[in-house]
Amino acid sequence: MAGGFVDLTEVPAEIAELDRTDPLAAMRERFILPTGVIYLDGHSLGALPRACSERSAQVVDREWGQSLIGGWNDCNWITLPSRVGGKIAKLIGAESDEVIATDSTSVNLFKLIVAAMGIRSVRKTIVTELDNFPTDSYLLDGVVSFCPDLKIKAVSAVDLFEAIDYSTGLVLLSHVHYKSGSMHDMEKITAHAHSRGALILWDLCHSTGAMKLGLNDASVDLAVGCGYKYLSGGPGAPAFLFVARRLQEELRSPLSGWMGHASPFTFERQFRSAPGVLRFLCGTPSVLGLSVLDSALDVLLAADMEHLTRKGRALGDLFIRLIVEGNHDLELASPRESTCRGNQVAIRHPQGYAIIQAMIAQSVIGDFRAPDVMRFGFAPLYVRYQDVWRAAQILFSVLEGKSWMGTNFSRRATVT
Amino acid sequence: MAGGFVDLTEVPAEIAELDRTDPLAAMRERFILPTGVIYLDGHSLGALPRACSERSAQVVDREWGQSLIGGWNDCNWITLPSRVGGKIAKLIGAESDEVIATDSTSVNLFKLIVAAMGIRSVRKTIVTELDNFPTDSYLLDGVVSFCPDLKIKAVSAVDLFEAIDYSTGLVLLSHVHYKSGSMHDMEKITAHAHSRGALILWDLCHSTGAMKLGLNDASVDLAVGCGYKYLSGGPGAPAFLFVARRLQEELRSPLSGWMGHASPFTFERQFRSAPGVLRFLCGTPSVLGLSVLDSALDVLLAADMEHLTRKGRALGDLFIRLIVEGNHDLELASPRESTCRGNQVAIRHPQGYAIIQAMIAQSVIGDFRAPDVMRFGFAPLYVRYQDVWRAAQILFSVLEGKSWMGTNFSRRATVT
Repeated sequence: MAGGFVDLTEVPAEIAELDRTDPLAAMRERFILPTGVIYLDGHSLGALPRACSERSAQVVDREWGQSLIGGWNDCNWITLPSRVGGKIAKLIGAESDEVIATDSTSVNLFKLIVAAMGIRSVRKTIVTELDNFPTDSYLLDGVVSFCPDLKIKAVSAVDLFEAIDYSTGLVLLSHVHYKSGSMHDMEKITAHAHSRGALILWDLCHSTGAMKLGLNDASVDLAVGCGYKYLSGGPGAPAFLFVARRLQEELRSPLSGWMGHASPFTFERQFRSAPGVLRFLCGTPSVLGLSVLDSALDVLLAADMEHLTRKGRALGDLFIRLIVEGNHDLELASPRESTCRGNQVAIRHPQGYAIIQAMIAQSVIGDFRAPDVMRFGFAPLYVRYQDVWRAAQILFSVLEGKSWMGTNFSRRATVT
Repeated sequence: MAGGFVDLTEVPAEIAELDRTDPLAAMRERFILPTGVIYLDGHSLGALPRACSERSAQVVDREWGQSLIGGWNDCNWITLPSRVGGKIAKLIGAESDEVIATDSTSVNLFKLIVAAMGIRSVRKTIVTELDNFPTDSYLLDGVVSFCPDLKIKAVSAVDLFEAIDYSTGLVLLSHVHYKSGSMHDMEKITAHAHSRGALILWDLCHSTGAMKLGLNDASVDLAVGCGYKYLSGGPGAPAFLFVARRLQEELRSPLSGWMGHASPFTFERQFRSAPGVLRFLCGTPSVLGLSVLDSALDVLLAADMEHLTRKGRALGDLFIRLIVEGNHDLELASPRESTCRGNQVAIRHPQGYAIIQAMIAQSVIGDFRAPDVMRFGFAPLYVRYQDVWRAAQILFSVLEGKSWMGTNFSRRATVT
């Protein structure tokens, strides 16, 4: 660096070497990224896979345009929720008949919370974490306002084990925290919940597609997750839900729409739940959204999940190391230990909002969560080690007032 | 006609004249239809508007691909549910702040049924029609199984008025019947429900975009409808819901997801309903689906709704007249009077399934509903009078065994 400008052309040899030997390096070519942009927001909206662009044109022009109503059979639209679910199952360590892709994470949470509590006769308490992702807490509020005999017990992460007791019907937790990136020990908490006779529902929004997951290895009961973050299914892509096989026949969806009927096209008068996880379908599936998500999943499934997990951790570790070595006035808000962290790193700074804006102006895209958290996500399929290095340099340049914008945030920052 | 073949090249002058003087004739050019196909299934899945093909590529390649997370603001994704809702409002005679496009019809039904019954203290009965579209009945089953103090009273259309009494909290009806095409008098039934102190929720799936509707003129309380039939938003397009302004602040959605929060991006701990109809949003909006639907609505809004209503009726009337004149063994299952009918005509025949298959083989696409109903829909924007005439001729040719397939259904039919 010299004269207030940052020289990013010379990537250190050590960093370049990491990219050269990255077994996932070729995956980046499968994504369309705007020229010059370092995209560190895949934890919020995944980048566009080339395949999605093609598939989207195909489903609109060829399938809808030419097959019209016949597409439900001829193009196999009707099985999209289970076909896409089957692909997601591979990413999360589930069987293909345990997952469907449908609706939004929020709607799926509602279905599973109500269904789970519907089979608990006397255990009326749902344990969750304070500062869970808002939609999870809000959905619980909604469920309770219409099922007033239920109780929510929201506690800090450190009090979780104690809070789960013999009155607990269900535990609802986010696997990776949306803000801090901190990751729960799925196996341990699930086992503890089971030891107290509680069911567990994991929100996998911030971990699906970011790392190898083993739902059945951990004996998880229920899970939901989102299609538009690490799965790269596009903005507002359909979400998914998982119901362990052993629970499927017992649970009933409150949202008993025709697609969850045992025989949707015989137009029977009474609702009969479809066998298995299909009973959690509700309305007509979103063919466009599911098709695009389907093609995005093929990209993810082409990657080795061990490599993906390892690279996600390594990218985060590198970023944290650079931040620490940079010795700026920044506070790490994520766990240092990569096995306790999702693929995102949170950094606290009183001027976080302004810093993120200044970085975006220099084509490094992270995001901000009030009051002071900057989030940087490292989607292993399209983020390179050199991107992490460049992002750190640009962050420093912003803090040091060396950016081409001439803004000097570091002075304000040191005052606070 | 001669020698077992049907000559469809010579359209009768009277029919040709109807197309020549059709004020909506030019609208057909805005749709992409497979060559040679007569598409009479727009009541099930609307045909592809050219604009949707372009918009879909735009939202995927340019908006998602290039704006990435910035698309929520830069491309105005976040306002899609209300912008698209505002366009639908114009079609159904509502104000733009009374409608949002979101989720599926089934999910929206659940929200509004539960919300409506949540404000009825002692009136615990929901009146609906027997043989309503299944998802409406099934959703009621689901609501009741989790709110066991509610009661469903399902009656035949002729018994509706009597069934709505001072114990009725909510009346749930389909405006146009999915099978028979028969249409309720929205104004009269709404007024009757109100006279008994009941709220009314109309399912507009089979009438939105098919004719001019006047929800506020009829003082309707609540409504839902689908985006993929006459709105041509694509397979599984997002649905919509309407809440009359006077009820909005009182109703609460059971599906209280973050997008229905008063301030979704401040990540507050407690749920606070958004003002107005926005509180009925739940999860992250389906940007692809909403964008495509948005572009389809522009096509519909370019048409004069009076012309559209008139043409829809005229197409159905013509089909019925031809059927009656054809003097075949067919039973009309739709009202003869066009003001009591949606844009679809149902015909009964014991071999209905086989007849529809034979017609599809000859590129006339209608559909079949068990046990014996053939449905033909007449979307006024892309169905021509000559299409109706040709479809009738092909139906007759199938019945008379004159089709090129050589199948003779008429013999079997006359036996029954």
